[in-house]
This record gives sequence, C-alpha cells and structure tokens, in this order.
Amino acid sequence: MKYGYYDTKDPLQKRLNRVEGQVRGISKMVQDDKYCIDVLTQISAAQAALDKVALELLRGHARHCLTSNQNQSKDGIDKADELVGAISRML
Amino acid sequence: MKYGYYDTKDPLQKRLNRVEGQVRGISKMVQDDKYCIDVLTQISAAQAALDKVALELLRGHARHCLTSNQNQSKDGIDKADELVGAISRML
Amino acid sequence: MKYGYYDTKDPLQKRLNRVEGQVRGISKMVQDDKYCIDVLTQISAAQAALDKVALELLRGHARHCLTSNQNQSKDGIDKADELVGAISRML
Amino acid sequence: MKYGYYDTKDPLQKRLNRVEGQVRGISKMVQDDKYCIDVLTQISAAQAALDKVALELLRGHARHCLTSNQNQSKDGIDKADELVGAISRML
Repeated sequence: MKYGYYDTKDPLQKRLNRVEGQVRGISKMVQDDKYCIDVLTQISAAQAALDKVALELLRGHARHCLTSNQNQSKDGIDKADELVGAISRML
Repeated sequence: MKYGYYDTKDPLQKRLNRVEGQVRGISKMVQDDKYCIDVLTQISAAQAALDKVALELLRGHARHCLTSNQNQSKDGIDKADELVGAISRML
Repeated sequence: MKYGYYDTKDPLQKRLNRVEGQVRGISKMVQDDKYCIDVLTQISAAQAALDKVALELLRGHARHCLTSNQNQSKDGIDKADELVGAISRML
Repeated sequence: MKYGYYDTKDPLQKRLNRVEGQVRGISKMVQDDKYCIDVLTQISAAQAALDKVALELLRGHARHCLTSNQNQSKDGIDKADELVGAISRML
C-alpha cells in the first residue's frame, strides 16, 4: 500500500540525513567544548528541520485521508493544507 | 577554558549519540514505508530528547554565569535551576 | 452551517472564559510585583489551556472533514483522532 | 523589593490587557460559529503574544540575577540577553 508521503520519500530522506549530520555536528561541538549558546543555536536548527519533516508527513497524511474514496479531491487537498498551516503556527 | 556543561559532557554526548540513532531510525522508517503516524511519533520522541539536551546545556550555562565571581554560589544555583524549570514548562 | 466544533461549543467557551480569567490574574500579578518565576508559571498554565482549546477545535475540524460526504464514518473519526494525537505530541 | 521586570511593568500590563481582549474575541468567535481554522489562527496569535510577555519577564529576571551583587554589570546583561535569545528560538 502507498502511504500519503509516498511522493515525497526522496526529499524527506534527504532532509533526515541532513538532520542526522546536524546532530552528529552538535555532538562534536560538545566534544570540542564549543560555547554553550552556539550549541543551543544548532539544536534549535535541528529541531526546526525536524518540524519541517513532521509537517511534510502530516500534509501527506491529511491529503491522503481526505481524498481517498472521495470525489471532492480538490476540496480535500485544500482542507488538508489549511489544517497543516494551522498546526505549523502552533509549534 | 571550562564551560558550564563541562561536568556533564559524557552524558550529553551519550544522549546526542542516541538522538543520532533515532534520526537514522526515522529515515529507515520512511525508506520502509512505515505508517505516517508512527513516523511522527518517533520524530516527537527525537524532539523531546533534543529538548532535554538543550535544557541540560541551559542549566549548566545559567549555573556557570550566576556563580562565577560571586560568593553567593548556593543562591545562584537555585536561581538558575528555577529559571530552567520555568523554561522547560514553556517548551 | 454547523462547523466541526458545534457539539463542544459550551465546554469550549467555558474553557476560554477561564483562560480570560487566568490572563487577567497574570496582569494583576504584574501589577502587584509578584515574583517573576511565579508569573511565568501562570503564563505556562494559560498557554497549556489554550493548547487544549486548539486541539479540541482541531479534533472537531478533522472529524468533520473526514466524515462528511463519506460512508466510512467510523474510520474517518479514528483517523482524525490519531492525527490530533500526533499533533498534541508535537506541541 | 524591586523585581527584574520593574522597569517594564507598564508595557507588560498593556500587552497582557491586549491578550485578555484577544481571548475574549476568540470566545466570541466560537459563540458566533466562526470558521474553525480562523479561530485557530487567533489562538496562535494569543499564544505568540504570551510568549513575548514571558520572554520579556525572563529577560528582566536574568538581567536582575546576573547583575545584582556583581561589578561586571555589562557582561551580566549581555549574558542574560544571549540566554533569552536562545530560549526564544526553542519555543
């Protein structure tokens, strides 16, 4: 079965590999006694990157749910995008 | 120079290595077409783990700032812990 | 037209009135020079109460979207609840 | 005793009164059956306003803590601002 994020699998994995590199870089900063506030800034950047991945997954999921077995695909997609927009403002 | 997180360097790095493994696991879940909501749950877990690392760094930083060149160490530490507690409730 | 939160209008308004009272209380704390960390704790409580209202609205919206013009109501409700659960963990 | 937010009491109370009005407006939107996503947008705006109040309080608190009984006031203020900047990125 194809899930909602099927069409964005490649970019999602690229983003996740980048986050993995970011976290490895943060570990190296701690190893090298880098300044605390600079480490925190990199952690915030990794969190923001994970937020983007999560929102992309949510968008795919909501679109999939709202359009399957329905004829009103266009409206379903708009509703799902709107929902994800609302969630992204709450994060 | 020794920064505020000096005393917790080892546990911080262990946590970060674990987060790196979590992110790699999330990438594998996407690769294997795992169910979207399950992937989101793992992303939330990685975010929570990064929050804990950030709060530990903040705690060390605040303690360091508030106790250096001061004689009132005990009070400085309490103030800093209190501050971090407040921040953790805001996340 | 009846929107998704129609059935929970009363409890939603009761919650919002309570949040309004909380914010008025926070303003009074600032007026009375209450201790900063205590004010922050009350702000976190108000934020948590608003999160709950938002999630209740999202749940109603998602349920409404996923069940209208569909015969598979039961599945639509489960999907929507699951979605809201995922979002709540991201906040 | 004068707490850390003493100098910004007036603007803080003005902001909080505005948030109180926002929450009252949200309650009215629910009363009037306004569209769910529009209500969520207003909730996000109220949350953002509360975040700003909280960060202002934190800034005052950190500055106060880091400069009292110290001679290095300038450095203490920079450290506190830096801390608040880091926290604001985590929210």
